[in-house]
Amino acid sequence: MAISMHSASVPIFVRMLGNIDGWLDKAEAHAAERKFEPSVYLGARLAPDMLPFTQQIQIACDAAKFCVARLAESDAPKFDDDETTLAELRLRIRKTIDYVLSVPRDRIDGSDDREISVPRRSGPLLMKGEMYLKHFVLPNFFFHVTTVYTLLRHNGVNLGKSDFLAGLTTAL
Amino acid sequence: MAISMHSASVPIFVRMLGNIDGWLDKAEAHAAERKFEPSVYLGARLAPDMLPFTQQIQIACDAAKFCVARLAESDAPKFDDDETTLAELRLRIRKTIDYVLSVPRDRIDGSDDREISVPRRSGPLLMKGEMYLKHFVLPNFFFHVTTVYTLLRHNGVNLGKSDFLAGLTTAL
Repeated sequence: MAISMHSASVPIFVRMLGNIDGWLDKAEAHAAERKFEPSVYLGARLAPDMLPFTQQIQIACDAAKFCVARLAESDAPKFDDDETTLAELRLRIRKTIDYVLSVPRDRIDGSDDREISVPRRSGPLLMKGEMYLKHFVLPNFFFHVTTVYTLLRHNGVNLGKSDFLAGLTTAL
Repeated sequence: MAISMHSASVPIFVRMLGNIDGWLDKAEAHAAERKFEPSVYLGARLAPDMLPFTQQIQIACDAAKFCVARLAESDAPKFDDDETTLAELRLRIRKTIDYVLSVPRDRIDGSDDREISVPRRSGPLLMKGEMYLKHFVLPNFFFHVTTVYTLLRHNGVNLGKSDFLAGLTTAL
């Protein structure tokens, strides 16, 4: 009759982060074909005052990680933001997926009414778990995932919408 | 204890589509300041084989419209894809918001287990309402909304993450 908090969060994170990993395969193939260092992607930006590729991936991972930790009232593992290669970014993605899958479903289910505190520069923002997931986490997560994809497209990588939506039938 | 199907869809669409309308204000101000026709945005692309700005807005609107129509088992209003100005795109957004708000909540709630058929070139894709919303509609909707934002940023419009996440406290 409704969607549980776990079901509305973890499977979305796992699938989309896994998709990024697949996009990186194509990014590496493109770099090999055009004979440039794949690390060139890491500094790519879509505007001078937008964050570069590496940070887009780091923040996408953190959006998922902190969501799960806050909803489950557990401590998120700390990841140093020190990735300098695609291989290290893949590892960050893998660690994030492993973490969000490690938190028991029943720690997240029922968190829709839990009070969540999100640290912000202007002071903590308080909201209920449902609002946090729907109106803060999901827009933010998809923003960074989409930007990762668009950065690769903008740099000529052979991706299409089916790559963005990969894993749909597996998820069903 | 869980999120209803209406609550997990309509408020997200209304807020994010409304945010696009706000980004267009800044886009128009930027065009006026730099003395170019605002219609220049309409053909902007982030890669030659990505869809232009106008279609990104049209598809974001349609993602919301068709989601609501399919979940509610009602007919979506038909919008001709003939917008050639920002004013017409704003009208498209307004009509979409009006439509998704017009569908009674109880027509959408409980649709998580309803069989949804999504027409695709390769034939219809069948899935339950919950999977349709989580794994098809939301990624697709946010993809196009984010691309609208990124296209404006890429073209120098003075937007930031707070514009992307505008209306958060109102939504809470």
